[in-house]
Amino acid sequence: MTVTLDDLPLRDDLRGQTPYGAPQAPLAIALNVNENTHPVPPVVADDIARSVAEVVAGLNRYPDREFYDLREAFAGYLGHDLTAEQIWAANGSNEVLQHVLQAFGGPGRTAMGFTPTYSMYTLLARGVGSEWIAGTRGERFEMSPSDAARQVREANPDVVFLCSPNNPTGTPLSLDVVEAVYEASRGIVVVDEAYAEFAPAESGTALSLLPGRERLLVSRTMSKAFAFAGARVGYLAADPVVIDALRLVRLPYHLSAVTQAAALAALRHSEEMLRTVADIVLQRDRISEGVAALGYDPYRTGSNFVLFGGVADARAVWQKLYDRGVLVRDVGIPGHLRVSAGTEAETTAFLDALRDITAEEN
Amino acid sequence: MTVTLDDLPLRDDLRGQTPYGAPQAPLAIALNVNENTHPVPPVVADDIARSVAEVVAGLNRYPDREFYDLREAFAGYLGHDLTAEQIWAANGSNEVLQHVLQAFGGPGRTAMGFTPTYSMYTLLARGVGSEWIAGTRGERFEMSPSDAARQVREANPDVVFLCSPNNPTGTPLSLDVVEAVYEASRGIVVVDEAYAEFAPAESGTALSLLPGRERLLVSRTMSKAFAFAGARVGYLAADPVVIDALRLVRLPYHLSAVTQAAALAALRHSEEMLRTVADIVLQRDRISEGVAALGYDPYRTGSNFVLFGGVADARAVWQKLYDRGVLVRDVGIPGHLRVSAGTEAETTAFLDALRDITAEEN
Repeated sequence: MTVTLDDLPLRDDLRGQTPYGAPQAPLAIALNVNENTHPVPPVVADDIARSVAEVVAGLNRYPDREFYDLREAFAGYLGHDLTAEQIWAANGSNEVLQHVLQAFGGPGRTAMGFTPTYSMYTLLARGVGSEWIAGTRGERFEMSPSDAARQVREANPDVVFLCSPNNPTGTPLSLDVVEAVYEASRGIVVVDEAYAEFAPAESGTALSLLPGRERLLVSRTMSKAFAFAGARVGYLAADPVVIDALRLVRLPYHLSAVTQAAALAALRHSEEMLRTVADIVLQRDRISEGVAALGYDPYRTGSNFVLFGGVADARAVWQKLYDRGVLVRDVGIPGHLRVSAGTEAETTAFLDALRDITAEEN
Repeated sequence: MTVTLDDLPLRDDLRGQTPYGAPQAPLAIALNVNENTHPVPPVVADDIARSVAEVVAGLNRYPDREFYDLREAFAGYLGHDLTAEQIWAANGSNEVLQHVLQAFGGPGRTAMGFTPTYSMYTLLARGVGSEWIAGTRGERFEMSPSDAARQVREANPDVVFLCSPNNPTGTPLSLDVVEAVYEASRGIVVVDEAYAEFAPAESGTALSLLPGRERLLVSRTMSKAFAFAGARVGYLAADPVVIDALRLVRLPYHLSAVTQAAALAALRHSEEMLRTVADIVLQRDRISEGVAALGYDPYRTGSNFVLFGGVADARAVWQKLYDRGVLVRDVGIPGHLRVSAGTEAETTAFLDALRDITAEEN
């Protein structure tokens, strides 16, 4: 007799749900989860391996619970006169955001984002028992300071997420919107800059807005530009008192000694690690131009991916790309697909496959 | 003007709290957090370093979200005809238990343990919004099947934690108690076997009780006997449908590719990794006999540590041991201290220091 989930005392709000996550398929050209498709450069990989090797004998001991050296390295990397006391980190930025919601959200509180946006915000908020408030975006998924501020004033959320640039649309976010939302809110404002390294330099970063704004948090990740998704390292900058608050909810020793050593080594090579960014931006712009030339409708993007509309049957095109060995993402917006910028060859393969499919359909 | 936590919209239930965690002090003889004080053996460390080195170049990609190879390795290590489908893992058993509470506890539900027990249970339960119910133990912290079952029937909790052997008391737990609590409950029963490898073989393991009990979960860790605290790897065995439930609440890609590779390599050497267990048990028994000979009152222990009473001023003795370079744990039970079994030399140093301090006091 097989036991089913109905036989278990599962929480009611989880019944009928399916686990989050894009399909993991062993395709040659995987452009579905906005990874940096360039491998870690050999010279950096060697240093990471050496650094990890140095800590292995001592793994019988718990790691530094405060991961002080790593926080110092992140502060140095981010600049803006940040210090280690203003830095937090965890196993991926999802865990960083979970800590934020555990400290400032939770049961009886609300969290807000502007949809379509990173779908984990909703899941993370519900996971801690917070109600999710779905704000809206303007035309072509853009946000204006006045409209965003108005929505925040009306909804009065405990935590607001601003994804900059936004996933899955790629939309860059002006710092004016961050300032306006901060002024309009009484709660925590998280600017999720997971894709910030791909945005034009003139967009700026919300890090520059931190002084004097103790409710403002800027999260980052090593999973995208840094080509370190497999190592699971996200981080955050904020007022030191915010870090004190996050310390109340983190699991003790949440960052392993191995993760700390690997991330520290990667940060020592940040220039090499980020050297692919310029090419990725080039390939992203090739995608935007290429899909437009095929008659699709790409959105403005400051990220390492492109969302494009004008796809009559997104599911069918997704499948045809899959059948040609190219994995992209159906993000659930009807008539749209999202594709990550790959290497030049991967990007060419995607554009060629889409050209064939489009020709077939017409 | 310095910002304080009072200036932030922190959750009310977190106000006034301090972060969990034993003091991390750089003392030569650290016997305070029940680590295995033996370093990872060189031959194993080499294989772990080599295995991690192999995955570094590919860290630009997200890890296997299902960590299938690692689950298969844990199933093989645990035996009892377990399969990969029955295994879960996370960054330390704290995260494993948090997943359990997110799936089966949460707001409006209750979790129960038998105090004094592992204090993280309380914090984890409150962290997900569950009410904590403190059951009681009998004389000398022992538990009987009938009393435990009675308490569970009366409290009717959604999740019950049975720590076997119990931390911080060391008390072994009979499988009769597990069976009785399971029968008495309608909720999830977690048997936390973090220290199981140090228990006498005749104690058995709750793994043997899994068939036909879909609400029974057995958690383990690599942090203790396995000398792998710094790598942060906890795991759990249960019915496959429980694993499905945990998949609903885990953060996607929660286990890094580096952690998976390191744990897999360590598991390939489980015999070498566990070779220190017999000596640790010997040192633990030396501690029990040694403190008794000094007039203290050690409790029955099946773990890698000893709790002893009869300490007139626990805080003062803790400080005097500290001043002699020996770090033990004041677990908050008046008149008691807890000490982990170290190497033979470390254990001797502890016993010598305690002998001096005791002589001074008399």
